[in-house]
Amino acid sequence: MARPSPCASCKRRRRRCATDCIFAPYFPSDDPQKFAVVHKVFGTSNVRKMLQELPVHQRGYAVRSLVYEAKAWAIDRVYGCVGYIASLKNQLAEAQNQVSELQKQLDVAQAQELDLNHAANKRNFDLNQRPSREDGPSGLN
Amino acid sequence: MARPSPCASCKRRRRRCATDCIFAPYFPSDDPQKFAVVHKVFGTSNVRKMLQELPVHQRGYAVRSLVYEAKAWAIDRVYGCVGYIASLKNQLAEAQNQVSELQKQLDVAQAQELDLNHAANKRNFDLNQRPSREDGPSGLN
Repeated sequence: MARPSPCASCKRRRRRCATDCIFAPYFPSDDPQKFAVVHKVFGTSNVRKMLQELPVHQRGYAVRSLVYEAKAWAIDRVYGCVGYIASLKNQLAEAQNQVSELQKQLDVAQAQELDLNHAANKRNFDLNQRPSREDGPSGLN
Repeated sequence: MARPSPCASCKRRRRRCATDCIFAPYFPSDDPQKFAVVHKVFGTSNVRKMLQELPVHQRGYAVRSLVYEAKAWAIDRVYGCVGYIASLKNQLAEAQNQVSELQKQLDVAQAQELDLNHAANKRNFDLNQRPSREDGPSGLN
Protein backbone atom coordinates (compact mmCIF):
# COMPACT_ATOMS: atom_id res chain seq x y z
CA MET A 1 0.00 0.00 0.00
CA ALA A 2 1.44 3.37 -0.96
CA ARG A 3 1.32 6.35 1.42
CA PRO A 4 -1.04 9.11 0.38
CA SER A 5 1.91 11.54 0.48
CA PRO A 6 5.40 10.20 -0.29
CA CYS A 7 8.24 11.14 2.06
CA ALA A 8 10.70 13.83 1.00
CA SER A 9 13.23 11.21 -0.13
CA CYS A 10 10.78 9.21 -2.29
CA LYS A 11 9.28 12.42 -3.65
CA ARG A 12 12.72 13.65 -4.66
CA ARG A 13 13.56 10.32 -6.31
CA ARG A 14 9.99 10.04 -7.74
CA ARG A 15 9.50 6.63 -6.24
CA ARG A 16 6.61 4.91 -4.55
CA CYS A 17 6.84 5.47 -0.79
CA ALA A 18 6.19 2.10 0.87
CA THR A 19 4.61 1.92 4.32
CA ASP A 20 7.92 0.60 5.65
CA CYS A 21 10.04 3.25 3.86
CA ILE A 22 13.07 3.79 6.11
CA PHE A 23 13.13 7.55 5.40
CA ALA A 24 9.42 8.29 5.88
CA PRO A 25 9.42 8.73 9.70
CA TYR A 26 12.26 11.27 9.56
CA PHE A 27 11.88 13.11 6.26
CA PRO A 28 8.28 14.29 5.84
CA SER A 29 7.13 15.54 2.44
CA ASP A 30 6.38 19.00 3.84
CA ASP A 31 10.07 19.59 4.68
CA PRO A 32 11.92 18.72 1.45
CA GLN A 33 14.91 20.89 2.47
CA LYS A 34 15.68 18.64 5.44
CA PHE A 35 16.22 15.69 3.13
CA ALA A 36 17.89 17.75 0.39
CA VAL A 37 20.63 19.02 2.72
CA VAL A 38 21.39 15.51 4.02
CA HIS A 39 21.27 14.02 0.53
CA LYS A 40 23.72 16.62 -0.78
CA VAL A 41 26.38 15.77 1.84
CA PHE A 42 25.88 12.08 2.60
CA GLY A 43 23.88 10.72 -0.33
CA THR A 44 20.63 8.78 -0.10
CA SER A 45 22.29 5.39 -0.36
CA ASN A 46 24.74 6.04 2.51
CA VAL A 47 22.00 7.46 4.75
CA ARG A 48 19.86 4.38 4.09
CA LYS A 49 22.77 2.08 5.00
CA MET A 50 23.55 4.07 8.15
CA LEU A 51 19.92 3.91 9.29
CA GLN A 52 19.59 0.22 8.43
CA GLU A 53 22.56 -0.57 10.68
CA LEU A 54 20.80 0.99 13.68
CA PRO A 55 17.89 -0.21 15.80
CA VAL A 56 14.69 1.77 15.07
CA HIS A 57 14.76 3.68 18.39
CA GLN A 58 18.18 5.17 17.57
CA ARG A 59 17.47 6.23 13.98
CA GLY A 60 15.82 9.53 14.92
CA TYR A 61 18.95 10.59 16.84
CA ALA A 62 21.18 9.59 13.92
CA VAL A 63 19.02 11.63 11.51
CA ARG A 64 19.30 14.67 13.79
CA SER A 65 23.09 14.29 13.79
CA LEU A 66 23.18 13.86 10.00
CA VAL A 67 21.03 16.99 9.53
CA TYR A 68 23.24 18.92 11.98
CA GLU A 69 26.44 17.95 10.16
CA ALA A 70 24.95 18.54 6.71
CA LYS A 71 23.77 22.03 7.73
CA ALA A 72 27.24 22.76 9.13
CA TRP A 73 28.73 21.81 5.72
CA ALA A 74 26.22 24.15 4.03
CA ILE A 75 27.44 27.00 6.27
CA ASP A 76 31.16 26.16 6.27
CA ARG A 77 32.22 24.39 3.06
CA VAL A 78 35.81 23.88 4.24
CA TYR A 79 35.54 22.73 7.85
CA GLY A 80 31.88 21.75 8.32
CA CYS A 81 31.12 21.17 12.00
CA VAL A 82 34.80 20.33 12.61
CA GLY A 83 35.36 24.10 12.56
CA TYR A 84 32.81 24.40 15.36
CA ILE A 85 34.57 21.61 17.28
CA ALA A 86 37.88 23.48 16.99
CA SER A 87 36.19 26.66 18.22
CA LEU A 88 34.59 24.83 21.18
CA LYS A 89 37.94 23.23 22.07
CA ASN A 90 39.59 26.66 22.11
CA GLN A 91 36.82 28.15 24.25
CA LEU A 92 37.06 25.18 26.64
CA ALA A 93 40.85 25.49 26.94
CA GLU A 94 40.44 29.22 27.64
CA ALA A 95 37.76 28.61 30.29
CA GLN A 96 39.90 25.89 31.93
CA ASN A 97 42.88 28.28 32.03
CA GLN A 98 40.63 30.88 33.66
CA VAL A 99 39.49 28.29 36.24
CA SER A 100 43.10 27.44 36.99
CA GLU A 101 44.13 31.12 37.23
CA LEU A 102 41.16 32.07 39.42
CA GLN A 103 41.78 29.07 41.68
CA LYS A 104 45.39 30.24 42.21
CA GLN A 105 44.23 33.81 42.98
CA LEU A 106 41.58 32.46 45.37
CA ASP A 107 44.18 30.29 47.16
CA VAL A 108 46.43 33.35 47.60
CA ALA A 109 43.54 35.53 48.80
CA GLN A 110 42.39 32.89 51.29
CA ALA A 111 45.95 32.42 52.59
CA GLN A 112 46.29 36.20 53.05
CA GLU A 113 42.92 36.30 54.84
CA LEU A 114 44.14 33.57 57.20
CA ASP A 115 47.37 35.52 57.86
CA LEU A 116 45.46 38.72 58.53
CA ASN A 117 43.05 36.92 60.88
CA HIS A 118 45.98 35.34 62.68
CA ALA A 119 47.76 38.70 62.99
CA ALA A 120 44.56 40.36 64.24
CA ASN A 121 44.01 37.66 66.84
CA LYS A 122 47.63 37.98 67.98
CA ARG A 123 47.30 41.78 68.27
CA ASN A 124 44.09 41.42 70.26
CA PHE A 125 45.79 38.96 72.58
CA ASP A 126 48.81 41.28 73.05
CA LEU A 127 46.48 44.20 73.60
CA ASN A 128 44.62 42.37 76.33
CA GLN A 129 47.93 41.69 78.09
CA ARG A 130 48.80 45.43 78.00
CA PRO A 131 47.43 47.86 80.59
CA SER A 132 45.10 50.53 79.33
CA ARG A 133 45.19 54.21 80.39
CA GLU A 134 42.38 53.48 82.86
CA ASP A 135 44.29 50.62 84.49
CA GLY A 136 47.23 52.83 85.32
CA PRO A 137 50.70 51.39 85.78
CA SER A 138 50.87 48.09 87.55
CA GLY A 139 51.48 48.47 91.25
CA LEU A 140 49.86 51.91 91.47
CA ASN A 141 46.29 50.60 91.86
CA MET B 1 49.55 9.82 -18.79
CA ALA B 2 48.59 7.51 -15.96
CA ARG B 3 50.25 7.69 -12.54
CA PRO B 4 52.53 4.78 -11.72
CA SER B 5 50.43 4.09 -8.61
CA PRO B 6 46.74 5.03 -8.65
CA CYS B 7 45.32 6.96 -5.67
CA ALA B 8 43.26 5.09 -3.09
CA SER B 9 40.01 6.25 -4.69
CA CYS B 10 40.90 5.17 -8.23
CA LYS B 11 42.39 1.92 -6.91
CA ARG B 12 39.17 1.16 -5.07
CA ARG B 13 37.07 1.95 -8.13
CA ARG B 14 39.60 0.23 -10.45
CA ARG B 15 39.90 3.28 -12.63
CA ARG B 16 42.78 4.98 -14.35
CA CYS B 17 44.22 7.67 -12.05
CA ALA B 18 44.72 10.76 -14.19
CA THR B 19 47.46 13.26 -13.38
CA ASP B 20 44.74 15.77 -12.48
CA CYS B 21 42.73 13.29 -10.36
CA ILE B 22 41.04 15.41 -7.67
CA PHE B 23 41.50 12.70 -5.01
CA ALA B 24 45.16 11.85 -5.66
CA PRO B 25 46.78 14.63 -3.55
CA TYR B 26 44.73 13.66 -0.47
CA PHE B 27 44.15 9.93 -0.72
CA PRO B 28 47.45 8.14 -1.40
CA SER B 29 47.40 4.50 -2.44
CA ASP B 30 49.35 3.44 0.65
CA ASP B 31 46.50 4.55 2.94
CA PRO B 32 43.39 2.90 1.48
CA GLN B 33 41.59 3.08 4.85
CA LYS B 34 41.59 6.89 4.78
CA PHE B 35 39.57 6.88 1.56
CA ALA B 36 37.43 3.89 2.57
CA VAL B 37 36.18 5.58 5.75
CA VAL B 38 35.27 8.79 3.88
CA HIS B 39 33.68 6.87 1.01
CA LYS B 40 31.52 4.88 3.43
CA VAL B 41 30.00 7.97 5.03
CA PHE B 42 29.97 10.61 2.28
CA GLY B 43 30.30 8.65 -0.96
CA THR B 44 32.89 9.26 -3.65
CA SER B 45 30.57 11.36 -5.80
CA ASN B 46 29.67 13.77 -2.96
CA VAL B 47 33.29 14.14 -1.87
CA ARG B 48 34.29 14.93 -5.47
CA LYS B 49 31.56 17.60 -5.71
CA MET B 50 32.53 19.12 -2.36
CA LEU B 51 36.20 19.33 -3.39
CA GLN B 52 35.37 20.71 -6.84
CA GLU B 53 33.43 23.56 -5.22
CA LEU B 54 36.55 24.66 -3.28
CA PRO B 55 39.72 26.39 -4.39
CA VAL B 56 42.70 24.01 -4.43
CA HIS B 57 44.37 25.55 -1.35
CA GLN B 58 41.30 24.76 0.82
CA ARG B 59 40.74 21.17 -0.32
CA GLY B 60 43.28 19.64 2.08
CA TYR B 61 41.48 21.23 5.06
CA ALA B 62 38.12 19.96 3.77
CA VAL B 63 39.52 16.43 3.41
CA ARG B 64 40.82 16.55 6.99
CA SER B 65 37.36 17.57 8.19
CA LEU B 66 35.68 14.85 6.10
CA VAL B 67 38.08 12.21 7.50
CA TYR B 68 37.49 13.50 11.04
CA GLU B 69 33.70 13.31 10.68
CA ALA B 70 33.79 9.93 8.95
CA LYS B 71 35.98 8.47 11.72
CA ALA B 72 33.60 9.89 14.31
CA TRP B 73 30.71 8.07 12.56
CA ALA B 74 32.77 4.86 12.62
CA ILE B 75 33.18 5.23 16.40
CA ASP B 76 29.69 6.51 17.22
CA ARG B 77 27.10 5.22 14.74
CA VAL B 78 24.26 7.22 16.32
CA TYR B 79 25.68 10.67 16.99
CA GLY B 80 28.91 10.83 14.98
CA CYS B 81 30.94 13.90 15.94
CA VAL B 82 27.73 15.65 17.02
CA GLY B 83 28.00 13.55 20.19
CA TYR B 84 31.46 15.05 20.74
CA ILE B 85 30.06 18.55 20.13
CA ALA B 86 27.39 17.93 22.79
CA SER B 87 30.07 16.69 25.20
CA LEU B 88 32.29 19.74 24.52
CA LYS B 89 29.32 22.08 25.02
CA ASN B 90 28.59 20.44 28.40
CA GLN B 91 32.23 20.67 29.48
CA LEU B 92 32.35 24.32 28.37
CA ALA B 93 29.16 25.18 30.28
CA GLU B 94 30.59 23.45 33.36
CA ALA B 95 33.93 25.30 33.08
CA GLN B 96 32.09 28.63 32.60
CA ASN B 97 30.00 27.94 35.72
CA GLN B 98 33.21 27.20 37.61
CA VAL B 99 34.72 30.49 36.38
CA SER B 100 31.62 32.35 37.53
CA GLU B 101 31.58 30.59 40.92
CA LEU B 102 35.32 31.11 41.52
CA GLN B 103 35.04 34.78 40.51
CA LYS B 104 32.29 35.26 43.13
CA GLN B 105 34.39 33.51 45.81
CA LEU B 106 37.42 35.63 44.86
CA ASP B 107 35.37 38.84 45.07
CA VAL B 108 34.19 37.85 48.56
CA ALA B 109 37.72 36.87 49.67
CA GLN B 110 39.21 40.13 48.34
CA ALA B 111 36.46 42.18 50.04
CA GLN B 112 37.15 40.37 53.35
CA GLU B 113 40.87 40.98 52.93
CA LEU B 114 40.17 44.71 52.42
CA ASP B 115 37.97 44.74 55.57
CA LEU B 116 40.66 42.96 57.60
CA ASN B 117 43.36 45.33 56.37
CA HIS B 118 41.15 48.28 57.19
CA ALA B 119 40.41 46.93 60.67
CA ALA B 120 44.12 46.20 61.27
CA ASN B 121 45.10 49.73 60.21
CA LYS B 122 42.41 51.17 62.47
CA ARG B 123 43.61 49.07 65.41
CA ASN B 124 47.22 50.14 64.79
CA PHE B 125 46.13 53.76 64.71
CA ASP B 126 44.14 53.38 67.97
CA LEU B 127 47.04 51.58 69.56
CA ASN B 128 49.45 54.38 68.67
CA GLN B 129 47.09 56.84 70.38
CA ARG B 130 47.07 54.73 73.57
CA PRO B 131 49.87 55.01 76.19
CA SER B 132 51.99 51.95 76.78
CA ARG B 133 53.09 50.65 80.22
CA GLU B 134 56.43 52.44 79.73
CA ASP B 135 54.78 55.79 79.04
CA GLY B 136 52.90 55.69 82.32
CA PRO B 137 49.63 57.54 82.75
CA SER B 138 49.42 60.96 81.21
CA GLY B 139 50.37 63.73 83.64
CA LEU B 140 52.54 61.48 85.80
CA ASN B 141 55.70 61.88 83.64
